[in-house]
Amino acid sequence: MRPAALDAVLADLRQHAASHRASLTEFVAIPSVSTDPSHAADVRRAAEWVAGRLERTGAMDVKVVETPGHPAVVAEWNGAPGAPTVTVYGHADVQPPDPWEAWASPPFTLSERDGRWYARGISDDKGSALIPLLVAEAFFRHGDPPVNLRFLIETEEEIGSPHLGDVVRRHADRLACDMVLSADGGMWRADVPTITTSTRGMVGLEVRVDGPTQDLHSGRHGGAVQNPLHALAALVAGLHEDGRVAVPGFYDGVVPLSPERATRLGTLPHDDDRYADAVGVPALHGEPGFGTLARQWHRPTLEVNGIGGGYQGAGTKTIVPASGFAKLTARLVPDQDPDRVARAIENHLQARAGEGVRVSVQRSGPGAPAYAVRADHPGLSIAREVLETVFGRPAETVGMGGSVPIVTTFRDVLGADTLFFSFSTADENIHAPNEFYRPERFELGLEAWARLWHRLAESPSSTSP
Amino acid sequence: MRPAALDAVLADLRQHAASHRASLTEFVAIPSVSTDPSHAADVRRAAEWVAGRLERTGAMDVKVVETPGHPAVVAEWNGAPGAPTVTVYGHADVQPPDPWEAWASPPFTLSERDGRWYARGISDDKGSALIPLLVAEAFFRHGDPPVNLRFLIETEEEIGSPHLGDVVRRHADRLACDMVLSADGGMWRADVPTITTSTRGMVGLEVRVDGPTQDLHSGRHGGAVQNPLHALAALVAGLHEDGRVAVPGFYDGVVPLSPERATRLGTLPHDDDRYADAVGVPALHGEPGFGTLARQWHRPTLEVNGIGGGYQGAGTKTIVPASGFAKLTARLVPDQDPDRVARAIENHLQARAGEGVRVSVQRSGPGAPAYAVRADHPGLSIAREVLETVFGRPAETVGMGGSVPIVTTFRDVLGADTLFFSFSTADENIHAPNEFYRPERFELGLEAWARLWHRLAESPSSTSP
Repeated sequence: MRPAALDAVLADLRQHAASHRASLTEFVAIPSVSTDPSHAADVRRAAEWVAGRLERTGAMDVKVVETPGHPAVVAEWNGAPGAPTVTVYGHADVQPPDPWEAWASPPFTLSERDGRWYARGISDDKGSALIPLLVAEAFFRHGDPPVNLRFLIETEEEIGSPHLGDVVRRHADRLACDMVLSADGGMWRADVPTITTSTRGMVGLEVRVDGPTQDLHSGRHGGAVQNPLHALAALVAGLHEDGRVAVPGFYDGVVPLSPERATRLGTLPHDDDRYADAVGVPALHGEPGFGTLARQWHRPTLEVNGIGGGYQGAGTKTIVPASGFAKLTARLVPDQDPDRVARAIENHLQARAGEGVRVSVQRSGPGAPAYAVRADHPGLSIAREVLETVFGRPAETVGMGGSVPIVTTFRDVLGADTLFFSFSTADENIHAPNEFYRPERFELGLEAWARLWHRLAESPSSTSP
Repeated sequence: MRPAALDAVLADLRQHAASHRASLTEFVAIPSVSTDPSHAADVRRAAEWVAGRLERTGAMDVKVVETPGHPAVVAEWNGAPGAPTVTVYGHADVQPPDPWEAWASPPFTLSERDGRWYARGISDDKGSALIPLLVAEAFFRHGDPPVNLRFLIETEEEIGSPHLGDVVRRHADRLACDMVLSADGGMWRADVPTITTSTRGMVGLEVRVDGPTQDLHSGRHGGAVQNPLHALAALVAGLHEDGRVAVPGFYDGVVPLSPERATRLGTLPHDDDRYADAVGVPALHGEPGFGTLARQWHRPTLEVNGIGGGYQGAGTKTIVPASGFAKLTARLVPDQDPDRVARAIENHLQARAGEGVRVSVQRSGPGAPAYAVRADHPGLSIAREVLETVFGRPAETVGMGGSVPIVTTFRDVLGADTLFFSFSTADENIHAPNEFYRPERFELGLEAWARLWHRLAESPSSTSP
């Protein structure tokens, strides 16, 4: 083992700025839109591009792993005996660029404007996923990385990672590690370094209310049969009461917010009025007794994502509609069980169906539990220390309101916790036109990943909590 | 004045059966689809065809009256001084035949199958509207009709009669009468003669709930902002309570159902189980304390005709939607005021908007009040007596759950009540493929109209209640 000197690696990273930008330009030029079958070859090309970069280290064992869908890249290097092992997770697929006309520059061409780099997928997740690849290359140019490395770069993240769990299980030996470092996830704010320690889980259902066999004339029949949309509205309205979810058992197992965490949330740079303005609502609304950040990160919620039934065109159509439906998703927190939550919602809906209609409830999948890194996970303090070094100010601990089901798989299959270590930020128009990335974040990210691996090696116990 | 003998007229009607069928064949062959601009010339042709038939009497003063839309036909004959004056109302336009492929025979060709005549518009309203034209012709062949006659045949009924009120007001002098006889309306049942004495009114509104400026990621924002679909569901659910409309003031002015009428309704040939089966609902549902027929004819109702918002495609989309809407129509009974009812609903919705969303309510028009012929209107007993003579069994008094706004205009402008005297029945696939008419009803209708005019002339006081 010939450990590379951190100073040399950091200097190398600074010297290669132009080449890094060229690499990112290449990466974003591949239109790896995973949801569009006509881009399947491009998605594969993105996986092969990643594999090629890893092979350029000359030291890693790299495989493009096939799935029934798009491939994944699995790579490993075991040259640091006794040092911790980290698995880097990221994705090389992107959202569709539509609507094209809303882009100020071609989506698959890196364009710099006003100190920002614009391109589809540059923030989610190509820019942030490229960082650890470049850092690994830099280490190998000067010797050996300080930790054993695995890479798992998938190309189906934007379609819900349907085959990733299977890839992890099939390659559990190669991916075995002390800690997963996710290059996906994104920081909360552009103006403050943050480290994400929890994600919410999710479970989805669709409720359908059927009444008459077909739409009925509301003059002839109105008043004599139950209108399925009345029944549907009552069911949906009955899901909440006074800002709380009214489904019995919904909150079972919810880990209460500690007073310390609640206090800490109060000190984060968040302003309710500015947030309400930003999303365009006249006032905020949520569960009583909790602030906005607690509601977004640490409390479960039940949302109607869509509702439909009857006539939706212009003007009036005087019918008693035959049916209606509502699509529901619940965001879960530790330690809610997705299956129990779904059953509680199903039971609640069926119990309140009322006469004159048929209510059916269908789940949209098994759901995923919430995830949280233990607050005393030693990797956390190292990551926080590194961020403080790089940003020159303390990092805040934040939650993620969204769901990243794969972290549960990492814990279950690999026995490893996941630290989110991404240098994207939430405001970079991901999934929208004019997605961008901040060049200064890219640079800070390179330094931070190099320092993180270095510090993890200095504190091997940190990775085996 | 040379009054035609009733017996001669009845014999004449029987002798002309083949010619009547030929006339109806001609009439339905005109594709007078009023909603389709490409059929504007056909609609005009239908009006001119009607005008031509009326001119064939050689006695009537006939005008095709222009409107900003499709024309109407106004005709008058004043040769029965001292006798009552009746205005015959009907329409010559039809619904679109779509879907064409669902028709067993070409929609604009009269086809006889299994003792029924099939064609678009043959039941609604060409068959029933042709009857009084043929009866007038028969009377004029044998002398003078017993009553003074006006005809008002419009061609915009299927698009909501937007210009008919104006036609009635502009031609109020020519249309002045003691009683309007509507050839439109339809009987309740094929197996029992009925006379319709009331229609429900209507008023329509659309409620819209706006939340965030655009759809939000339900993970990032769920729980922190009010979901417009939660608010919408609560608003819609709050419109009803225990089967009654929960809007304060909604029932203001509603004329209670008399115990006599309630008892009479109970004797009508209606079976709740068969009705529930026919419309396909597991159970009936409506306002407590009233039976199905009372709910349909004599009680007001508030229906959601359509609801929509958020994601309605396949699968799941995890959003907090920006907005949602519901389309509402209320069916009204005497003596509800459409404007007051609409305002009550608007106020109720606004008062319950809740925080975090904006609620807006828009009316879909001025609405129309309900209509009822006075129970002691002498024309009613004559019509009932004629139906009993023709059908050989007593006629029942029924209501119409739907709305016929023009009858209010007739009362307001002409000072005349309207009797529905149609020989269509409600089961004849109107507005649907394979619309049909019963030849035996056509024959009975011809006899009934001849007898009705004759009897009205015998009891002139009957028409000036």
